[in-house]
Amino acid sequence: MIVVVKPNVSDERQNQLIDWLKGMGLGVHISTGEFNTVLGLIGDTSKVDIDLIESLDIVDSVKRVTETFKQCNRKFHPEDTVVEVGDVKIGGGNFAMIAGPCSVESEEQIVGIAKAVKASGANLLRGGAFKPRTSPYDFQGLKAEGIDLLKIARQETGLPIVTEIMNLRDLPLFDDVDVLQVGARNMQNFDLLKELGKTDKPILLKRGLANTLKELLMSAEYIMSEGNDKVILCERGIRTYSDYTRNTLDLSAVPMLHELSHLPVIVDPSHATGIARLVPPMACAAAACGANGLIIEVHNDPLHALCDGAQSLRPEEYTALAKKVEKIREALA
Amino acid sequence: MIVVVKPNVSDERQNQLIDWLKGMGLGVHISTGEFNTVLGLIGDTSKVDIDLIESLDIVDSVKRVTETFKQCNRKFHPEDTVVEVGDVKIGGGNFAMIAGPCSVESEEQIVGIAKAVKASGANLLRGGAFKPRTSPYDFQGLKAEGIDLLKIARQETGLPIVTEIMNLRDLPLFDDVDVLQVGARNMQNFDLLKELGKTDKPILLKRGLANTLKELLMSAEYIMSEGNDKVILCERGIRTYSDYTRNTLDLSAVPMLHELSHLPVIVDPSHATGIARLVPPMACAAAACGANGLIIEVHNDPLHALCDGAQSLRPEEYTALAKKVEKIREALA
Amino acid sequence: MIVVVKPNVSDERQNQLIDWLKGMGLGVHISTGEFNTVLGLIGDTSKVDIDLIESLDIVDSVKRVTETFKQCNRKFHPEDTVVEVGDVKIGGGNFAMIAGPCSVESEEQIVGIAKAVKASGANLLRGGAFKPRTSPYDFQGLKAEGIDLLKIARQETGLPIVTEIMNLRDLPLFDDVDVLQVGARNMQNFDLLKELGKTDKPILLKRGLANTLKELLMSAEYIMSEGNDKVILCERGIRTYSDYTRNTLDLSAVPMLHELSHLPVIVDPSHATGIARLVPPMACAAAACGANGLIIEVHNDPLHALCDGAQSLRPEEYTALAKKVEKIREALA
Amino acid sequence: MIVVVKPNVSDERQNQLIDWLKGMGLGVHISTGEFNTVLGLIGDTSKVDIDLIESLDIVDSVKRVTETFKQCNRKFHPEDTVVEVGDVKIGGGNFAMIAGPCSVESEEQIVGIAKAVKASGANLLRGGAFKPRTSPYDFQGLKAEGIDLLKIARQETGLPIVTEIMNLRDLPLFDDVDVLQVGARNMQNFDLLKELGKTDKPILLKRGLANTLKELLMSAEYIMSEGNDKVILCERGIRTYSDYTRNTLDLSAVPMLHELSHLPVIVDPSHATGIARLVPPMACAAAACGANGLIIEVHNDPLHALCDGAQSLRPEEYTALAKKVEKIREALA
Repeated sequence: MIVVVKPNVSDERQNQLIDWLKGMGLGVHISTGEFNTVLGLIGDTSKVDIDLIESLDIVDSVKRVTETFKQCNRKFHPEDTVVEVGDVKIGGGNFAMIAGPCSVESEEQIVGIAKAVKASGANLLRGGAFKPRTSPYDFQGLKAEGIDLLKIARQETGLPIVTEIMNLRDLPLFDDVDVLQVGARNMQNFDLLKELGKTDKPILLKRGLANTLKELLMSAEYIMSEGNDKVILCERGIRTYSDYTRNTLDLSAVPMLHELSHLPVIVDPSHATGIARLVPPMACAAAACGANGLIIEVHNDPLHALCDGAQSLRPEEYTALAKKVEKIREALA
Repeated sequence: MIVVVKPNVSDERQNQLIDWLKGMGLGVHISTGEFNTVLGLIGDTSKVDIDLIESLDIVDSVKRVTETFKQCNRKFHPEDTVVEVGDVKIGGGNFAMIAGPCSVESEEQIVGIAKAVKASGANLLRGGAFKPRTSPYDFQGLKAEGIDLLKIARQETGLPIVTEIMNLRDLPLFDDVDVLQVGARNMQNFDLLKELGKTDKPILLKRGLANTLKELLMSAEYIMSEGNDKVILCERGIRTYSDYTRNTLDLSAVPMLHELSHLPVIVDPSHATGIARLVPPMACAAAACGANGLIIEVHNDPLHALCDGAQSLRPEEYTALAKKVEKIREALA
Repeated sequence: MIVVVKPNVSDERQNQLIDWLKGMGLGVHISTGEFNTVLGLIGDTSKVDIDLIESLDIVDSVKRVTETFKQCNRKFHPEDTVVEVGDVKIGGGNFAMIAGPCSVESEEQIVGIAKAVKASGANLLRGGAFKPRTSPYDFQGLKAEGIDLLKIARQETGLPIVTEIMNLRDLPLFDDVDVLQVGARNMQNFDLLKELGKTDKPILLKRGLANTLKELLMSAEYIMSEGNDKVILCERGIRTYSDYTRNTLDLSAVPMLHELSHLPVIVDPSHATGIARLVPPMACAAAACGANGLIIEVHNDPLHALCDGAQSLRPEEYTALAKKVEKIREALA
Repeated sequence: MIVVVKPNVSDERQNQLIDWLKGMGLGVHISTGEFNTVLGLIGDTSKVDIDLIESLDIVDSVKRVTETFKQCNRKFHPEDTVVEVGDVKIGGGNFAMIAGPCSVESEEQIVGIAKAVKASGANLLRGGAFKPRTSPYDFQGLKAEGIDLLKIARQETGLPIVTEIMNLRDLPLFDDVDVLQVGARNMQNFDLLKELGKTDKPILLKRGLANTLKELLMSAEYIMSEGNDKVILCERGIRTYSDYTRNTLDLSAVPMLHELSHLPVIVDPSHATGIARLVPPMACAAAACGANGLIIEVHNDPLHALCDGAQSLRPEEYTALAKKVEKIREALA
């Protein structure tokens, strides 16, 4: 850690600061420049409160030179992590095609979609049982019953199931779920992350609405620091001043996360754009910049079938998209 | 709700849509303009999925004309809500001065600060027992012990206590806490909000990192829809591309929230700016635009005393600030 | 245009509003719902100030149902526009590979890079002669001399040249330039746009730092409304709270702009990310989601060659990228 | 400037970097820590391209320790700058009340409003003659005629006039204007800033839509570096994801700019919020956090008078606001 002291600070005050830092067990290397003194801190700086030091009136700025994320850091783990879900592998050279409806609505619906997306090349089934909704008056999901229906769809198709957990009290209900999803709004629900870290379940961790890549990695670190290293990162769009799309899909996060971390990175173009007709081009773009998989909403509802449905694709649209993605992956292989 | 149909849509497709809407029990008023047909939906539209309709390929856009927040809406409750915490009133013409350290560290610390801020005019004591931290390696608070220490400080000073709850499993620990705070990262932890709605405790609900005012009000609605109407809204800065402050304090939220809702609105200038020297001017600004209170970090730590401490004020700085705020309130009375 | 009147407005005040609207030559269609009255305005609403009406205290909200962009709107011009620059075509099925250095520095430099990128498959040469810099103390470009050097590079290679114009007074210097670029900071320099609209030069219009797609299209409209329809739109990253990249490349803008407008859309991954190693994956992603071209920085400077240079690729990296982009375009053909 | 070298870089490559830096005439102080080597650069680093160095593959990060803004920097000019406009002083203990209509429309209108705002305590008159509009089809202002009408209003009232210049070619028309305003969209129109720097006119420089404080100060530096030190900074709201206000007024910019710079800082609550009823509370807040003045839209149009007008206040509302602002300034004196 590097501390830049402001110009014209008295030796007395500067020494108070140095003594305090040394009192924390740190080595302090003093470098005097033309305008500023720079303190290089040596030792275990992970407990040092950077905000506190930065706010001292004699300090100009502080910079960490070692990252605070450790277990998910590629520096200390150069090979790609591959998360195994049954026979399916996610990460490394493997590509996950996760598909299914926004919400589980009925046995007929989820089994029907599961069969359709399997036929189109999906290798995992998604479906919401617990639904985080902005309004308390909106449909909140079938809950435990929804999970049971997902298991039936798994039995019928062999597809492992992915579904969202919203709070740690519900954890026992997810005992027989294959991949537990943490939604964007819960990315910094740290107590939930810690509980998930104590399981041995693969965790699909979505980037929060306005969170940085570092914050996403620190949330992965919460899970990993409790012993669970099966974390899959997911870019799903960030909030900006976008006027036509619901969020702004930040695809540069894909190669950047690959550089920073060994964890698999998948992309959710359905939630990112909120518009079904943008899902295929953005799915292709995600594959082209190195994503390890896609999670995409597919429906088979008659109303949706009547017209284009919100952010969900029809099964035949998903089939066409899956072929395009395959071609792009071959072109770049 | 108003649905604008795209130009050149066939009568057949338009009628399919109208039939589907009527099938949901809605009245449909058709208005044909020069370029577009506009459908006015009459009846209970609260269950209608606006995103779904907006995404239909024959629909140009949809607009709700009635807001989805009801219980916190000023339209249906014109008078200001006043939340009572012991003898202290928050909202209406009453002004809450909530102060205390970022974290509870020891009995000596919290009792010392409690006495100091009480002497300066604070009427509630804040202090973190459970601390949400971006990194799992950072100090996570004294937890249950921290709450016990807050209670001692309350006994010594008579100040009601405000402290953050991070998950619903911890709720029993907060039985004897006066005001439960929901932090910015948990503003959309809907299961926690619902549990808090089942208590009769005043809830201090902080605006999330990048949440809109409507989303803040919908989260208040989650609490209120379960039966608890003691909700205090708190603006604490939003994430932007700001280069000098940690967040951007959105003070226009104060008069806007007053217009939209009858709930009290307080401001947290400490977290919003992250810089102690900006806290007094922003606290004055908050008072000047109609906030119902301030929640401010105050410390008495020797290091902090040595220099300016991060975002925390020294007790004497808080005293000076409290006087200024009082003068501004008198000037505007 | 639709005007939603607030509930409980007196007939008298509502009639004043209706009379005022009729006084502007508009037809007013009144639709009375359960809660609100909705006014549908018929006629030429392009001159109506939507902000003014929206701010009236008896008005809940206003919505335009016809877009304000006309000449660039795909609704009125369904086929793709193809901009021709000498023998090079941009738009439709044609793909533009624009490459070159950030700044023109010397004849040797620009001719050398021009030859290198031509050999790699570039079909237009870019290079900054006038450089917009945040600081007045930074290098501002070789100006007129830089344009002369670009012309020499064009003569040597046959590549048409693309370079930025910063103000309307400099227009005569660009007489023999093939494509005039408007930088992000000048996207809403409306007087410059109007002057460019009076020329018959192709204009490469970059999206501003924090501008919406609608604003970008309205700026294109400024150029087109003066008679010049040779406009090429360029997505180059928008400002967010991104922690690792300079900007956030908004690739969903590509298919969305294609839906809204018939103008060609190219992508600048160099400025969007600011990091050379992210340029190839993001260039591939841009090609995969339907961009009509790429503008990429390439250098041949010895220091840059020593290490990876900022956001610029080495010529051999550009060659490799051009091959990948070609493969992706073939895969999606 | 401090350069942090990545871990595990070979001595050879590190020495190449050091030699290159020394070749630029800089002293290089090498500090070897436990994990990283840190280079302290000594000498004139103002010409060093921080982005270039940061992008080198052997460099972890780079930090400037001296700011790039010089002439507007409070470090080198501790006293407040006071800009004089006729008898009116802006900055230091003086408070500017700038008021007037959005656009100049007629002699009767501008003279009428000028008299009204003067009576309410305004000391400068604003009014748009050249209007930057998102759409080319919107009213673009009366232009030269608008400036003539402002001069008539000045003659009638004695109020100095403030109006916006949109391009450098129009400069001769502003010969007899008292304060030239640079709008948000032109904050980084560097050629215009340089031309204004060659005049001796006071310049009111508005912060751009999504610009940082540092960028605002660098734009002030463009004007000052050409010899004109009469610059007034103006906060007018930044673009975020705000759902009810047009922009987000960033009032913490006021005390922060005062800390960084000696230039006067005023606030425009009209454009920041876009809603007349939010103008008084935000104007009070601006005064309470130390602004040196306010620029506020006031109208006297009959339609506006009929209802609340967009973002403009009626003269009597401005009078009431001016009294409140005065009281707040007295309370804090």
